[in-house]
Amino acid sequence: MNAGTGTRAGPRPATDARKRAALLVEALPYIRRFRDKVIVVKYGGNALGDAGDAGAGAVGSGEAAALASFAEDVVLLRSVGMGPVVVHGGGPQIGELMRRLGKEAAFRDGLRVTDAETLEIARMVLVGKVNRDIVSAINVHGPLAVGLSGEDANLITAAAHSPELGFVGNVHDVDPTIVSRLLAEGLIPVLATIGTDESGQAYNINADTVAGAVAQAIGAEKLIFLTNVEGLRADPSDPASLLRQVTAADLERMVADGVAVGGMVPKVEACAQAVRAGVARGHILDGRVPHALLLELFTDAGVGTMVLP
Amino acid sequence: MNAGTGTRAGPRPATDARKRAALLVEALPYIRRFRDKVIVVKYGGNALGDAGDAGAGAVGSGEAAALASFAEDVVLLRSVGMGPVVVHGGGPQIGELMRRLGKEAAFRDGLRVTDAETLEIARMVLVGKVNRDIVSAINVHGPLAVGLSGEDANLITAAAHSPELGFVGNVHDVDPTIVSRLLAEGLIPVLATIGTDESGQAYNINADTVAGAVAQAIGAEKLIFLTNVEGLRADPSDPASLLRQVTAADLERMVADGVAVGGMVPKVEACAQAVRAGVARGHILDGRVPHALLLELFTDAGVGTMVLP
Amino acid sequence: MNAGTGTRAGPRPATDARKRAALLVEALPYIRRFRDKVIVVKYGGNALGDAGDAGAGAVGSGEAAALASFAEDVVLLRSVGMGPVVVHGGGPQIGELMRRLGKEAAFRDGLRVTDAETLEIARMVLVGKVNRDIVSAINVHGPLAVGLSGEDANLITAAAHSPELGFVGNVHDVDPTIVSRLLAEGLIPVLATIGTDESGQAYNINADTVAGAVAQAIGAEKLIFLTNVEGLRADPSDPASLLRQVTAADLERMVADGVAVGGMVPKVEACAQAVRAGVARGHILDGRVPHALLLELFTDAGVGTMVLP
Amino acid sequence: MNAGTGTRAGPRPATDARKRAALLVEALPYIRRFRDKVIVVKYGGNALGDAGDAGAGAVGSGEAAALASFAEDVVLLRSVGMGPVVVHGGGPQIGELMRRLGKEAAFRDGLRVTDAETLEIARMVLVGKVNRDIVSAINVHGPLAVGLSGEDANLITAAAHSPELGFVGNVHDVDPTIVSRLLAEGLIPVLATIGTDESGQAYNINADTVAGAVAQAIGAEKLIFLTNVEGLRADPSDPASLLRQVTAADLERMVADGVAVGGMVPKVEACAQAVRAGVARGHILDGRVPHALLLELFTDAGVGTMVLP
Amino acid sequence: MNAGTGTRAGPRPATDARKRAALLVEALPYIRRFRDKVIVVKYGGNALGDAGDAGAGAVGSGEAAALASFAEDVVLLRSVGMGPVVVHGGGPQIGELMRRLGKEAAFRDGLRVTDAETLEIARMVLVGKVNRDIVSAINVHGPLAVGLSGEDANLITAAAHSPELGFVGNVHDVDPTIVSRLLAEGLIPVLATIGTDESGQAYNINADTVAGAVAQAIGAEKLIFLTNVEGLRADPSDPASLLRQVTAADLERMVADGVAVGGMVPKVEACAQAVRAGVARGHILDGRVPHALLLELFTDAGVGTMVLP
Amino acid sequence: MNAGTGTRAGPRPATDARKRAALLVEALPYIRRFRDKVIVVKYGGNALGDAGDAGAGAVGSGEAAALASFAEDVVLLRSVGMGPVVVHGGGPQIGELMRRLGKEAAFRDGLRVTDAETLEIARMVLVGKVNRDIVSAINVHGPLAVGLSGEDANLITAAAHSPELGFVGNVHDVDPTIVSRLLAEGLIPVLATIGTDESGQAYNINADTVAGAVAQAIGAEKLIFLTNVEGLRADPSDPASLLRQVTAADLERMVADGVAVGGMVPKVEACAQAVRAGVARGHILDGRVPHALLLELFTDAGVGTMVLP
Repeated sequence: MNAGTGTRAGPRPATDARKRAALLVEALPYIRRFRDKVIVVKYGGNALGDAGDAGAGAVGSGEAAALASFAEDVVLLRSVGMGPVVVHGGGPQIGELMRRLGKEAAFRDGLRVTDAETLEIARMVLVGKVNRDIVSAINVHGPLAVGLSGEDANLITAAAHSPELGFVGNVHDVDPTIVSRLLAEGLIPVLATIGTDESGQAYNINADTVAGAVAQAIGAEKLIFLTNVEGLRADPSDPASLLRQVTAADLERMVADGVAVGGMVPKVEACAQAVRAGVARGHILDGRVPHALLLELFTDAGVGTMVLP
Repeated sequence: MNAGTGTRAGPRPATDARKRAALLVEALPYIRRFRDKVIVVKYGGNALGDAGDAGAGAVGSGEAAALASFAEDVVLLRSVGMGPVVVHGGGPQIGELMRRLGKEAAFRDGLRVTDAETLEIARMVLVGKVNRDIVSAINVHGPLAVGLSGEDANLITAAAHSPELGFVGNVHDVDPTIVSRLLAEGLIPVLATIGTDESGQAYNINADTVAGAVAQAIGAEKLIFLTNVEGLRADPSDPASLLRQVTAADLERMVADGVAVGGMVPKVEACAQAVRAGVARGHILDGRVPHALLLELFTDAGVGTMVLP
Repeated sequence: MNAGTGTRAGPRPATDARKRAALLVEALPYIRRFRDKVIVVKYGGNALGDAGDAGAGAVGSGEAAALASFAEDVVLLRSVGMGPVVVHGGGPQIGELMRRLGKEAAFRDGLRVTDAETLEIARMVLVGKVNRDIVSAINVHGPLAVGLSGEDANLITAAAHSPELGFVGNVHDVDPTIVSRLLAEGLIPVLATIGTDESGQAYNINADTVAGAVAQAIGAEKLIFLTNVEGLRADPSDPASLLRQVTAADLERMVADGVAVGGMVPKVEACAQAVRAGVARGHILDGRVPHALLLELFTDAGVGTMVLP
Repeated sequence: MNAGTGTRAGPRPATDARKRAALLVEALPYIRRFRDKVIVVKYGGNALGDAGDAGAGAVGSGEAAALASFAEDVVLLRSVGMGPVVVHGGGPQIGELMRRLGKEAAFRDGLRVTDAETLEIARMVLVGKVNRDIVSAINVHGPLAVGLSGEDANLITAAAHSPELGFVGNVHDVDPTIVSRLLAEGLIPVLATIGTDESGQAYNINADTVAGAVAQAIGAEKLIFLTNVEGLRADPSDPASLLRQVTAADLERMVADGVAVGGMVPKVEACAQAVRAGVARGHILDGRVPHALLLELFTDAGVGTMVLP
Repeated sequence: MNAGTGTRAGPRPATDARKRAALLVEALPYIRRFRDKVIVVKYGGNALGDAGDAGAGAVGSGEAAALASFAEDVVLLRSVGMGPVVVHGGGPQIGELMRRLGKEAAFRDGLRVTDAETLEIARMVLVGKVNRDIVSAINVHGPLAVGLSGEDANLITAAAHSPELGFVGNVHDVDPTIVSRLLAEGLIPVLATIGTDESGQAYNINADTVAGAVAQAIGAEKLIFLTNVEGLRADPSDPASLLRQVTAADLERMVADGVAVGGMVPKVEACAQAVRAGVARGHILDGRVPHALLLELFTDAGVGTMVLP
Repeated sequence: MNAGTGTRAGPRPATDARKRAALLVEALPYIRRFRDKVIVVKYGGNALGDAGDAGAGAVGSGEAAALASFAEDVVLLRSVGMGPVVVHGGGPQIGELMRRLGKEAAFRDGLRVTDAETLEIARMVLVGKVNRDIVSAINVHGPLAVGLSGEDANLITAAAHSPELGFVGNVHDVDPTIVSRLLAEGLIPVLATIGTDESGQAYNINADTVAGAVAQAIGAEKLIFLTNVEGLRADPSDPASLLRQVTAADLERMVADGVAVGGMVPKVEACAQAVRAGVARGHILDGRVPHALLLELFTDAGVGTMVLP
């Protein structure tokens, strides 16, 4: 981002000017089209820290670089007039602090049983660590990011998922007012996925689900999942079967047929539901590709799987 | 707060109507006078949890009641048009988590030596626990509070206090834009006192000092410290020597003469500096008195020590 | 109203702080609730001057004190954001000037027969004397009150009540635009109840009726009658039968049953009609109680009779 | 004013089209030039009623016609975008009511000694009668006029002229806010010249002086006196010496030399002071000429005496 | 337009003041009525230049005087708050340049066959000469006129009239946004009647038809044709049969009966269609009468034929 | 510009994603930086038509393609929030029409002697042909371009260059109001370089000079000349001496030393003067390179010569 000085040094790049011009002609209409549109981006907790890492959840250098690249992309989107909203989880980091506090993790049907103490740990990690790391990475570029949890201005109202799971919540309602206002002021909301019920009791909620619910509630143009896979595959075991474009119906079939499994299920379901509810496009990208967000948004070909209604 | 229904039940109160009328005539001009004015309130970490309490920093029932009463006062101030900003610390809660993580605390000249791990713990506790508890207590009354840390939108720029202390910071600059905007939208900012430098490195900062710096930067009408003492005393050992009204010069003398000591020093210094810099009044109140904020703001007599320029 | 200086002198009041805090907690939600709401207050002509008094309608000292207290209340309502509109009559003062001009009064069914000369006298007294006294009493507190008659900006269009009564009018239409605009500018409209027809002919109209019609037309929150009785009684002869709360249907029954009589009838009818037409509450208060307006508006118990739809 | 229907009936006027076109070309630039400009017009009490008339100050038919024509002119000025402000006196009408009440008039140096009772009579007549008659005459054309006295919103602050004269006042200060706001809403303020001091005591003030003070305070474009003479004469006894154009200096000389005498003096002094203080033009017109206001404002030649700085 | 100085010189005009006042009272309500209304004026190409004149379409002195008078009227309308839009043709001037370029004119059913070269000539003359002459004549009075063609901001979308006629177009759609915006900024749009289709191909369109379509699209108050006849006649051969007022139905009958012929037909049709579509009045005037526009708009009698719905 | 549909077809491009991402990271900051900035682009008359072409100045297919590419670039700049202003000349097209009309061209010191007839021809060609062709080419993409000449809203006030040259003008003053307003409404002004003096007399002005004067008057960020050379050379005869970056002082020296000659002189002088007067950058580009504008604006290396203050 050396546009500041506007002086020129060094040789002209050897790249063919014709190709560069073509890419600009390709990209500019997307910039126009997405201007003032809200883009909800789910940024995966996996990319943020490595549970096996030494130290108390310190961000490793690879992760730091990935986060810095992601932050740069988000700032670029904001700078050309889009409204990026970052939603994040933090499972590995929660597990790490529980382990250090000698707290045993318990699971039921793949979901973590969350007692009061676990909830407090989750909340501290999500709001007080992961959220802070993302906010800081963005704000190196200027006073842009503001961290939120679903408790702020009652953004996310939650209800208990089931009595056995304790304080694991479902999204009951989303009031996106605070998000809209921060966007209107040119800021970048970064959202930790803790919600509350009316009595003020907090709940931990799946971040993929929250991303989808927020995208719907705010009328986003796009819902984007940055993952650590290349995209969706027709055959999970065949890298050549990567899908470039699917419909909500395709996604629903993939879940029903068991083609989408594990952590991909909430992403796929959130995409399907969001595009059915008016979000123009869903995207499942490989967050490991540098600047994947830019390539997906501003080029015809994109880099992952695009979901249409 | 039963103003919602406007129906009447039960007997008229025996209280003399004349006294009640007199109090209203006394209070209403203060409401007019402070309308649209910013009131920065430092809420003490001591009141929020009891380090000796069982459980992971759970809020005891006495503390919960005090917090609920404080939250009600803040919501009432907001509802009659003032702009309350809550600033909080959380020393006891930080100590508690460190103890549980088996982390030894080290001090130099009364200040905690803060290495990277200590900082991360402090940040998790302040932003992910204490801040959340206050936000939740307020939002029981409606979608009003929004938690912030000094990292959000680069609200507080910090610099290291001294190399020996690690990541203990001083306030270098305050950009109150995000606070002002939230206030303008009828919200209540709740501020955890973590700051960052330009590289994104976080620091833990004394909450009394931050409260004073924010009050100055935003042009507050009042800077209020809720403490666990009755107010300032001319003679610390004599309860009868409680001061109702002092000047900035008085305060500076009290620090120089060693009359103000310990945790009272940063409060006294922040008050003196703030009123010299344009904040109309400082106040040091006893947060244990129910609705101390209302009594101080809306009655002629007040309940604590008021600081004039 | 010594809120201006913000310094403190004299001892703390002996009153229990807990009771004072409770009253504030009780009053503040009403202030929030009525903010930006219009409150139409009918102020009785009886309170303004004493026909038996020496001098040409000079305001006696008791009346002057009552008017000053009323003016203070109205200014306080305005200062905390409500929109008070004062409507007044002036029967005794009209009678006094007629007597001095040697003009005989004639009545039919309790209504004054109003020829051209009587109308001119009434208009001079209402617009040029009573209205002025109220405006002046308010404006001692600042440039707040603006006197109006129904002729200004065609606020009240009137029609003759009956040929036999001459220029006694009924309300035909209310255009509250000028009242709304003065309110929007932070002013206090004070309204003398002269109306005109389309040809510019003036009429004298019952002030209770005008107060009700204006409250409806402007969408007031409340219509308040300040009278010289304690409130409505179930049994007019039994002071212990004072009603704290009635419905429009109750009122209509009281008129039909002859329980409400004399000057109370137009007040009761105006209240019933207004709450049926959307005014949230009617109130009939004892204007002799100091600060009756404040006690009725800002305390749960109130001081008079409240009318619900 | 038959522009409403836009249909045509009857023969074309014999008047030469060329002359009519020339007058339009002459008038339109004045309309552009005075658009959004404030025009303060002093309307003489003499024209409103005839002290010798039978009845209680009833407006005679000649006076009614003159008032109707004046009202039409004022409405036309307003309709093409100017901001007319009417200021009026009412000496003859005050004298008439005093006579009817058997109150003896006393004079000192040509000024009426004004005790409390005289003041009350003057206020009733000016605010409750003369002001009302003008407001009604204008409002036949629509909801345009709003009557004011100097007490409203503390428009005119007065001070006693001299102890001997009682409640005869001088203008101490003018706060034209309420006048400006009514003008901004398309209304026509009509001003009775009662002022008050800070304690709320009313005073009767010379209307010519008030007209000049209001014109200065509001930054009027023009100050116009409608009188019952043709204009200013170089030689008061010679009709042929009518002056079409004079300067402030000329006026001051005329007062010093005794050429201007009697009731003309305050008009001449007000004009001189106003144009020296930034009012662009003063005008002294013959109010008996039908539509004198229009002819003076919209034709090159005008009909009276124009005053330049 | 000597309103600028506001000083007076020379004798008062002998014209009777009463007549002058009457004309002002007549004209001012029209000014109020038409304020902020759009007036579309078709200015005839015939008046702009004389094909028989020496030189390349130079404007003769008679034409220059007529154009200057027209420009003055348009500026006066603008100055008193109306929104004049000028639409013009330029047939004679096109013919002149074709003759000079040795290009043969061909006609079919009275319409000029327009090949690519003819179109280019027409466009150069209309946009680059006639439009410029009108803009310049207006802008002598200030920076007011802005020339447009139907190509600008896609103001007029056209379609081919018939294959045989080449680039003669019909109005397919009007997007009056650019005209409205220029009007809103106090400017005077001057419109040459070239349109384009979606591919960017230009067409020459009858100016009378465009004037009508623009008046409808923009919701004009009036559509005025300045012609070189006195107005419409019931009997074309009888000057005494001039019609002062007709309806759309009358006009349609005149076309059907062959009473309206030749160049009058598109004017008559445009008027009928416009008033049926919501334009309040159509007018057909004699542009040779000096200031015909002012006389028609601001006097009861007018100077031509007025068309009602 | 296929961004409209957002569906994907065909294979992913072979181009390395890393390079594409790098170009986006390079380009986006420029888009942010130039947002809401005015970019004045001088588009050469040479590129628009070929004097040797058959037909009356018809645009040849090569020229049409260049114009279409230029139009696309301008529309893209507008679509991402910049404010492009196009200024054009048209020398060859003027010469062509003169030749066809049998008008002999005369020159003095390289400037065309311009009599009244020549001026009229120039105005018809520039305003009625060249300007129209550019407007049409842009408006194929939407209702964006509005053609202007310097006569519109008195945009360019001119004065005669010298008596011998007739109606050849210099820029005397620029009033950019109309340009700013069209930009503020999202439109693209296209400016033909005819100016007028106060009497309405038109002049033909050098387009390079006008571009520079407009850029200064409007406070443009950039002044760009699209030429038919690669850029400025240190040695005009050596293609390898192309300069990538020069200062105003360098340019002034090149003119003084005779390095810049012919048609390059006014461009070089306009650039030097503009950057000295506050325009941030001047650019001299090769308009024959497809999308030269985009490459110069959005890449670090650019494609021509950049001028710094």
